[in-house]
Amino acid sequence: MDINSYIEAHSARFFEELFSLIRIPSISSDSSRRADMEACAARWRELLLAAGVDRAEVMPTSAAPVVFAEKIIDPAWPTVLVYGHYDVMPVEPLSLWKTDPFEPVVKDGILYARGADDDKGQSFLQLKAFEYVLHEGLLRCNVKFIIEGGEEIGSPGVEEFCREHTDLLKADVILVSDTSMVGADIPSITTGLRGLSYWQVEVTGPNHDLHSGIFGGAVANPVNVLCKMIAALTDADGRITLPGFYDDVEEVSREERDMLGAVPYDEEKYKANVGVKTLFGEKGYTTLERTAIRPTFDVCGIWGGYTGEGAKTVLPSKAYAKLSCRLVPHQQHHKIEQMMIDHFNRTAPDTVQVKIEAIHGGESYVCPIDLPAYKAAEKGYEEAFGKRPLAVRRGGSIPIIAVFEQVLGIKSILMGFGLESDATHSPNENIPVDILHKGIVAIVGFYKNFGH
Amino acid sequence: MDINSYIEAHSARFFEELFSLIRIPSISSDSSRRADMEACAARWRELLLAAGVDRAEVMPTSAAPVVFAEKIIDPAWPTVLVYGHYDVMPVEPLSLWKTDPFEPVVKDGILYARGADDDKGQSFLQLKAFEYVLHEGLLRCNVKFIIEGGEEIGSPGVEEFCREHTDLLKADVILVSDTSMVGADIPSITTGLRGLSYWQVEVTGPNHDLHSGIFGGAVANPVNVLCKMIAALTDADGRITLPGFYDDVEEVSREERDMLGAVPYDEEKYKANVGVKTLFGEKGYTTLERTAIRPTFDVCGIWGGYTGEGAKTVLPSKAYAKLSCRLVPHQQHHKIEQMMIDHFNRTAPDTVQVKIEAIHGGESYVCPIDLPAYKAAEKGYEEAFGKRPLAVRRGGSIPIIAVFEQVLGIKSILMGFGLESDATHSPNENIPVDILHKGIVAIVGFYKNFGH
Repeated sequence: MDINSYIEAHSARFFEELFSLIRIPSISSDSSRRADMEACAARWRELLLAAGVDRAEVMPTSAAPVVFAEKIIDPAWPTVLVYGHYDVMPVEPLSLWKTDPFEPVVKDGILYARGADDDKGQSFLQLKAFEYVLHEGLLRCNVKFIIEGGEEIGSPGVEEFCREHTDLLKADVILVSDTSMVGADIPSITTGLRGLSYWQVEVTGPNHDLHSGIFGGAVANPVNVLCKMIAALTDADGRITLPGFYDDVEEVSREERDMLGAVPYDEEKYKANVGVKTLFGEKGYTTLERTAIRPTFDVCGIWGGYTGEGAKTVLPSKAYAKLSCRLVPHQQHHKIEQMMIDHFNRTAPDTVQVKIEAIHGGESYVCPIDLPAYKAAEKGYEEAFGKRPLAVRRGGSIPIIAVFEQVLGIKSILMGFGLESDATHSPNENIPVDILHKGIVAIVGFYKNFGH
Repeated sequence: MDINSYIEAHSARFFEELFSLIRIPSISSDSSRRADMEACAARWRELLLAAGVDRAEVMPTSAAPVVFAEKIIDPAWPTVLVYGHYDVMPVEPLSLWKTDPFEPVVKDGILYARGADDDKGQSFLQLKAFEYVLHEGLLRCNVKFIIEGGEEIGSPGVEEFCREHTDLLKADVILVSDTSMVGADIPSITTGLRGLSYWQVEVTGPNHDLHSGIFGGAVANPVNVLCKMIAALTDADGRITLPGFYDDVEEVSREERDMLGAVPYDEEKYKANVGVKTLFGEKGYTTLERTAIRPTFDVCGIWGGYTGEGAKTVLPSKAYAKLSCRLVPHQQHHKIEQMMIDHFNRTAPDTVQVKIEAIHGGESYVCPIDLPAYKAAEKGYEEAFGKRPLAVRRGGSIPIIAVFEQVLGIKSILMGFGLESDATHSPNENIPVDILHKGIVAIVGFYKNFGH
């Protein structure tokens, strides 16, 4: 049976299986969700066994458990290690969701749910492609799976797990479906990922909220101070002013910048999609360059003082912010993290107390496009989308991919199928059903072109 | 019976009456508390009638109702109008309260509750002093009461109420207990109040929260933008940079600044009380000057993006802030409000949308110290505290006091008894029971020295 007929024939079961994963609210950043995390790992184990692996285990780490599985056909054959994650992002602000984030809904050919794309939907494509090639006797390689539960919070415990299980995880290449394409009709493979540093800052002024009339003017306001410290981190042209921040940034060659310039890009459509009149970013770079080959600084969240209804005249005791930088080769996230911490400690006025700590991070990653596995992936996309995929660096971060390279010495091929419109990490996350279908076809195409 | 014996004899009833007001959570900024507001007004009416007024009415305004009452002994005698407010501030953050904010607790001679000072406790002193002088036949003036329900949100509807009821509110002087003293053993009368302007700002970037990896670097982050706009409003020396902001500021005479300099002030104690190592304020002014005769800019609250546990990598859609300025004579709050609105609209980058509106405000106020009523108040404090009270300008704002002067043409005497340690507007608001006692004695002293 060809892959399209197979998907057709098993469509109802495929949806039910994917929905069973989505319905478990496995939010890794929420410590009250531990039982859901365990349940989601257990469900993955069941689905892997049902798909035909020899063994599947839920294995402990120092953080969330990982699901490991393998199908070893011939030890002499090359081995593919499939990586995915069963955890998802928080769903706040809940009020902006049009449907329950954990009750999948298909409407006008689009599946809506937290994890529909990132990464329950995409990991599931790997599972179903594997099921098909195994079922049809098309496999010419061994396949292992590692599905982890902490990707959205920096994969805690997974690096240590890799160090402890290098033999178990031995493979020739890692396959990952957790990235996006340039467009639904412009297939692309991500060949670069940005790194990430993420901090939380706490600024304490007075030891309790003060009456702003009685004390205002004489006691430093921690929100005012925090705003000043954040404001000073970027200049008017969008450059980051942290001393030394750009020291290790890879200056991408004119040739590679030209390649990125060839990626179809419609500025009006881009602006309409995000709903802004004017884009903003570092001077001297295009939008695609700003999001792919340049580092950034964003405040992911800020809070302090009175945030309720009406006008409370208070001089707050505390102000908080969550800060993040996307990093590029060859910036090292530990170095950048320390740089920011030192900067805050050095520049904080003595009228307040500033505490800052790094709470998440990872290195950037670049994939060479002459690997046999990359070529096989390229052919897979061609079979599914009828076009050769573009090789592009993207702006997102999957810190564990760099860890795999450093600890296991294995390169990853990022066979992602997400779209910009998928609203990953946002309310109303979604993925077109058609893309789910083509994703399976593309991965099947990879297996047909890879191995013994 | 002398006043001390009277308080002693009726102490249990006095507490029960005050507690009955405190137990009603009359938070004016919370629209879900309307029924509590009505209940608190009704309770005030009962207590006024019990204290001996001729008539007491709960009267509607366009916002919260006011309680009006009067005791007219002889139309030829001068009339005192007592002003107070039955509404209180919100209680967030609730977690910092050591006891239920609406269940009064007396511990080590201190009464803890929201409103213990501001203004249920202080208004109640006026009621009990009136009860005593009436009961003992000591009154040589008529007394009216206006107790309103919106002071903490700018007294909406009260200005209009004054315009519509100028005859009803006719009086020779207004007595207000809603301010604080320099210290428990340094009695003082507030002779100046700062004005206030208060705005809420909403900055919108993208139309939904974006993945900071995919879009970070190319789309302006509304939190970053808001921080920059707030940071730019003050310079490193604590001066406000809003163009034209200082144009109308009264340059206080050397003589009056010297008087303020004579107020006892212990910087180490002041710092220890608020828990900061270093104070911060406008260069060239002392702490007392900064809080009394100089205008200020404070962020009262800020929020936007992800504020939950852990690290969500998001480029937020929205950022909000509540901004406030304390104003001094002769700044006009409407002019300052428009100045800030124009400034935000003019300086907002076109990469975001900025909405700003004024949500609260009032003029500053100065009381001459040669009024007969002021002299009577001075004598009252002397009887209660054994010392002549200092005349000092203070930093807080009671916008309605300026309205009374403008609309009714009546000066107010600010016979306040609060202390800096009372934590008004903050968790664990409190007032020493001893101060409540002395406050009644001081107001009784006023009545003994004022009138026919």
